[in-house]
Amino acid sequence: MRRPKAVAEAAFNLAVDAMGGDGAPGIVVDGLAITAERHPRARILLVGDEAALGRLLRGNRRASAICTVRHAASAVSMQTKPTAALRMRDSSMRLAMDAVAQGEAQGVVSAGNSGALLALAKIVVRTLPGIDRPALAALSPSSRGDVVMLDLGANIICDWRNLVEFAVMGEVFARTVLGLPAPTIGLLNVGAEELKGDERLRLAAEVLRSSPIAKQFHGFVEGHDITAGTTDVVVTDGFTGNVALKTGEGAMRLVGDLLKQVFAETIVSRLGYVLARPGLERMREWLDPRRYNGAVLLGLSGVVVKSHGGADAEGFAHAIDVAMDMVTHGFNDRIRAGLEWVGPAGKPQPGQGASGAANVAAAG
Amino acid sequence: MRRPKAVAEAAFNLAVDAMGGDGAPGIVVDGLAITAERHPRARILLVGDEAALGRLLRGNRRASAICTVRHAASAVSMQTKPTAALRMRDSSMRLAMDAVAQGEAQGVVSAGNSGALLALAKIVVRTLPGIDRPALAALSPSSRGDVVMLDLGANIICDWRNLVEFAVMGEVFARTVLGLPAPTIGLLNVGAEELKGDERLRLAAEVLRSSPIAKQFHGFVEGHDITAGTTDVVVTDGFTGNVALKTGEGAMRLVGDLLKQVFAETIVSRLGYVLARPGLERMREWLDPRRYNGAVLLGLSGVVVKSHGGADAEGFAHAIDVAMDMVTHGFNDRIRAGLEWVGPAGKPQPGQGASGAANVAAAG
Repeated sequence: MRRPKAVAEAAFNLAVDAMGGDGAPGIVVDGLAITAERHPRARILLVGDEAALGRLLRGNRRASAICTVRHAASAVSMQTKPTAALRMRDSSMRLAMDAVAQGEAQGVVSAGNSGALLALAKIVVRTLPGIDRPALAALSPSSRGDVVMLDLGANIICDWRNLVEFAVMGEVFARTVLGLPAPTIGLLNVGAEELKGDERLRLAAEVLRSSPIAKQFHGFVEGHDITAGTTDVVVTDGFTGNVALKTGEGAMRLVGDLLKQVFAETIVSRLGYVLARPGLERMREWLDPRRYNGAVLLGLSGVVVKSHGGADAEGFAHAIDVAMDMVTHGFNDRIRAGLEWVGPAGKPQPGQGASGAANVAAAG
Repeated sequence: MRRPKAVAEAAFNLAVDAMGGDGAPGIVVDGLAITAERHPRARILLVGDEAALGRLLRGNRRASAICTVRHAASAVSMQTKPTAALRMRDSSMRLAMDAVAQGEAQGVVSAGNSGALLALAKIVVRTLPGIDRPALAALSPSSRGDVVMLDLGANIICDWRNLVEFAVMGEVFARTVLGLPAPTIGLLNVGAEELKGDERLRLAAEVLRSSPIAKQFHGFVEGHDITAGTTDVVVTDGFTGNVALKTGEGAMRLVGDLLKQVFAETIVSRLGYVLARPGLERMREWLDPRRYNGAVLLGLSGVVVKSHGGADAEGFAHAIDVAMDMVTHGFNDRIRAGLEWVGPAGKPQPGQGASGAANVAAAG
């Protein structure tokens, strides 16, 4: 199995797929100009059409100061199926992944096709030992600070084992990016009571209750607990997580749009807006979806970050921030340590714990 | 099979479970006082502890004007398991259901235990011919007006057939309560493309595309489409629907709480609130969860409405409004007509349609 070389040896911090996303490659280069300000010593391998990138970088000194271009003859489009993307050996996404697999770069950032990114990451960057399936995680706002949500769509169908792995990876992610010493974990369900939900959820809860992170496991949480910040990590399957994430974003957008209408209505309400503006602006910035851009594919032998396809330069720069943060904090070494108890030598089994899963199965 | 008698014969519009919900029976009686103002000719069968209800009604003239009390010796608690609730023959929830089954009342409203309510409704009120499983539906706010969402938690695990039934029932519900001549329908998924999601979703979409409501079927929608109002009806399984509903409510509450903080921050921002107040109040009222209280159990031979267990008198009165609305508009006759093509004589099958489900199955 190929393994990325040690951090110090990598020539680049990140390999960036220049051709992914709605506004590529222009938005990507503009985003890297912001990165250059925030991380002036970053070394970026920019992978994509050499001619187009050359033109863009000539007009963008800041971005060109941190970028080295590598030519890619093709690009994965939003319509490309994952199986087809796997056969494209010269796509910008593939070559960026190759750079991580070969230890040239510590991580990769792409705003391209999610399905292709996931398939390529699994094949090229590879999953960590003990991990069955990588999961897509991101931060989400709550009244008690940011929370980690996963899976956000990498795995549409999950079993209890996947959910347990997601909990372990989410816990390490929360320690790394939120700096919490012992983040709490909740399993998303339709009620907090032990008998709620399906067999899969009850088994995952059972295993987590007798795991090394049992003290941090809060049990089941419900949809409203995400924004209430009941737990630092919210674990769910990729279907539910994707729907929940987009539903929450949509609800916030609805309230935001209504607020705009209210404030624009009359001269008096406009004046009201002006008076409350500093606080409203701060709130808008805090809830800004761009601040939450950059979903991380956890469970791989390298840092893989997915930017939203519709992100602007600011949003893309945030996705790069997330990747730089993970690379700097040695996230993958931490996750390896956190995963020891779910490693191939000792896959968790319900019933191994003190409380006995036989009862749970009978109740299901 | 018992069938409720015709509308004109029923002695009561609604049977109300007086003992369900956090503040029962006080909140229930206070809610009925509001109902008495809105529907002065309503005839309510109030089922619960006779002594307690007698005391409450003596102190509440408005409520007592529309209520007839029926004694129930027991009450289903929030901890009662559905199987145990089915064995309780003298509970207020059971006796209220019995009144519907025997044609005494046209519908039932309860703020009690959801699992018990669903189990009792299926056994006592019975499902309509052609319906495999009833679904919980409610209205939800969107930027284009209210939308119908279902299932909100009655069926944690669903197959494609259930999803098709939900679409049909949701369509009739939207015509009845929103007054739309041809409501559009979306199937909740993780992406709008045909290949997204699981087999179950692709088969349901395939069947709907060749159904009598094909023209109203929009295809797949995503989480953010709920509040965007992309379709009038959003169909999903009970697990996803429950999580999405609560996530959306939680997100709106987060923004609402942040707004309160912003406006309370300084004397200037407080003045800003005062100036924008009329519009802000209107917005708050429009998004008020109490205005969306009253989830309807669709697919039964009678109207069954579930109020939120934590609803106050205003919220409970809204749940009664929903039930009165459905009873008045002959919802069940409409749903019987809408269900003819999914009736037992001709259960829809993928592949019966023009487009051929074989390809879909192969792609899945």
